[in-house]
Amino acid sequence: MRIEILCTGDEVLTGKIVNSNFSYMSQKLEDVGLSVVWGTTVGDDRESLLTAFRLASERADAVIVNGGLGPTVDDLSQEIAAQAAGVPLVLHEEWLARMEDFFARRSRVMPPNNRKQAMLPETAEFIDNPIGTACGFSLDIGKARFFFTPGVPRELRRMLEEQIIPRLLARAGTQTAIHLKRFHSYGLGESHVDSLLAGVEDLVADGSVKLGFRAHYPQLETKLTVRGADMDDVQRKLAPVQAEVRKRLGNFILGEDEQTLEGVVLSELTAREGSLALVETFTSGLIAARLGPLPGAEKVLRRAIVTRDRHQLYDAVGLYQIPSTQELSLEVAEAVANAARIKSGATHALAVLIDLDEGADRIDLAGTVWLAIATEGETVSRRSRIVGGREWVRLGAAELGLDCFRRYLQGLPVVERIDFEKV
Amino acid sequence: MRIEILCTGDEVLTGKIVNSNFSYMSQKLEDVGLSVVWGTTVGDDRESLLTAFRLASERADAVIVNGGLGPTVDDLSQEIAAQAAGVPLVLHEEWLARMEDFFARRSRVMPPNNRKQAMLPETAEFIDNPIGTACGFSLDIGKARFFFTPGVPRELRRMLEEQIIPRLLARAGTQTAIHLKRFHSYGLGESHVDSLLAGVEDLVADGSVKLGFRAHYPQLETKLTVRGADMDDVQRKLAPVQAEVRKRLGNFILGEDEQTLEGVVLSELTAREGSLALVETFTSGLIAARLGPLPGAEKVLRRAIVTRDRHQLYDAVGLYQIPSTQELSLEVAEAVANAARIKSGATHALAVLIDLDEGADRIDLAGTVWLAIATEGETVSRRSRIVGGREWVRLGAAELGLDCFRRYLQGLPVVERIDFEKV
Repeated sequence: MRIEILCTGDEVLTGKIVNSNFSYMSQKLEDVGLSVVWGTTVGDDRESLLTAFRLASERADAVIVNGGLGPTVDDLSQEIAAQAAGVPLVLHEEWLARMEDFFARRSRVMPPNNRKQAMLPETAEFIDNPIGTACGFSLDIGKARFFFTPGVPRELRRMLEEQIIPRLLARAGTQTAIHLKRFHSYGLGESHVDSLLAGVEDLVADGSVKLGFRAHYPQLETKLTVRGADMDDVQRKLAPVQAEVRKRLGNFILGEDEQTLEGVVLSELTAREGSLALVETFTSGLIAARLGPLPGAEKVLRRAIVTRDRHQLYDAVGLYQIPSTQELSLEVAEAVANAARIKSGATHALAVLIDLDEGADRIDLAGTVWLAIATEGETVSRRSRIVGGREWVRLGAAELGLDCFRRYLQGLPVVERIDFEKV
Repeated sequence: MRIEILCTGDEVLTGKIVNSNFSYMSQKLEDVGLSVVWGTTVGDDRESLLTAFRLASERADAVIVNGGLGPTVDDLSQEIAAQAAGVPLVLHEEWLARMEDFFARRSRVMPPNNRKQAMLPETAEFIDNPIGTACGFSLDIGKARFFFTPGVPRELRRMLEEQIIPRLLARAGTQTAIHLKRFHSYGLGESHVDSLLAGVEDLVADGSVKLGFRAHYPQLETKLTVRGADMDDVQRKLAPVQAEVRKRLGNFILGEDEQTLEGVVLSELTAREGSLALVETFTSGLIAARLGPLPGAEKVLRRAIVTRDRHQLYDAVGLYQIPSTQELSLEVAEAVANAARIKSGATHALAVLIDLDEGADRIDLAGTVWLAIATEGETVSRRSRIVGGREWVRLGAAELGLDCFRRYLQGLPVVERIDFEKV
């Protein structure tokens, strides 16, 4: 099935907002085995919209139109859809009542111009929007089925997942269940993981498992798209492949599906009623800023210290026996982590200390990371060197710190060679 | 002049990467008074590329094509451009030599497939890429002038600004100079600023100053696009308008052009050889993470403390006279800021303490912010309440903290009503 996406709106066309709706939709469709073959962006302009609708209707089987369903005069999607399909706009009484109720429950009277949002092309199928006033709809224009969706991201997301994708799959005639399994890893590059996983798709002979990746430094997402007759069939096919992925990527898998690295660390600590003291230097609060805002973190993250000055560092954790002239080392990192743990009364401490290269930012600027984890009975540490400029070092060091701590909490080796470090 | 943008590549089409190149290009063109009227996205597919080139060549005066100039087999832009223009590909000797030199200087031999990057359509004008191996080029296809640019963002940016935009302006026949003036503010919403600035464009009678906005919570960017015969003329026209904008937005302007809020704060402190101690709670290191990584911050940001536990908070700053059961207040925030300043030996301290509402995240979840700034001779404080969910509160409180500190350092009132708070 040939699918196109048509994004509308002056804000997107002029670059006032980055069009993340497009990548979101395209990716979601890929995840269920559907492919987008053409994308178009036009502004809130009658002539452009009509031309774009007609061009898409000649090329595609299905077109998802995003935006232009609002109550203002520059929201033109219903009107141009009706024009392109050669049908009049008619009032959708039920949606009008829903909108009036929507406003009434907020103790407001519906402004007259919202009525426009209930005017749909006569031949349209209504598509519900449970969280906004812009309902969706679908209709045929030329040889293509058009699906109209709201521009507000959370409304779009819900409508796409709950209503548009099932309709597209039904039209595609795939009477199959589709499931997306995701693994998140840190420390191995995409091509490395690709070679490690060579052949896993073939564990299911009929080609119903497809491997894909999405890299967002420092993490990599490994995706398995699985098709089957129903969800039981999908699970049966997925089982040997996911077992093999877990085996081959092993300790590098930091989470699966909706899990995040910081969420896994928080869960591990919460499960053992643990608490954490953090010490950061050049990462400057980046690790704290990932853990701290999570619900429940207020009970776990006891204290974080950020400083790039050694005298301040030792003073903040009450470590008076180390002179501030002493170079960083694994011993210093361990002493800092231990002192921070004792000072804050936390069960665990993580110290991520960085010696950043001197000079202007450049692609080969590096940082040496001295990382230590302390508990009452034990201290472990690790040295690493990350190359790639200030921002690369900062992001990489924060990830390395959190991931080593995840490994420690899960009883895995803290020191294991990663692709992003120089030895 | 009718301009279209054509983005190519499977990674963009499938949503693997968000297409920020499109919004970047569109915005840069808007900034110099040119408008993009149509955007197309296609994958690395011969037929789609050829169709897209032909459609654009029938509609547009100028087309910017992004991507597809790399050395691999799926990079097809040169080849399809030649096909669409009906001319052969020929070797650009000079670029081949430049590439060979590029590799030689890195002690590497150029792989044979990079030669492809020097094959340009016979009628093409070469466009230099001083920082990569993908040169640009332009040529006529149908009635339109096509400009081919690399997909790597930093290479695209440099080529667009230095080479493509001057060519587009020359073709547009606007023998005028164009300048973009930007003001960054915090605390006033877009519609509020729009009404405050009503009529400023009319201070220059000939319509050569255009007002625009770009909102990215919590900041707002106010843009003045000015056209003139030359840069002197532009500056003459801009002068009364920018003076009026500065007057009307006054204390709310946190920076202009390339300035950032954290950069302004760092400059102010550096200029007076000052230093800073930071105390954060629910913002969890977000303020530190904005200031800390800046070059020069290592001399200024002495210490940041992050904790959401009151006992930890008072202990970390050595404030033993306040019981941890005591509610937050302006007095507590001031005591914390003062103690942090003394403990770290910094000239200044900023404490941003937050009481977050209980319960699950929701759109009307709020946080009360208790903010204090301390120096040796003075302490000032401010209470604010921000509504809009956990993330909105967290981002808003970090911005409020930094901006109040900016106001303090610049001798402006720290307490001034903003649009994003409930009183």
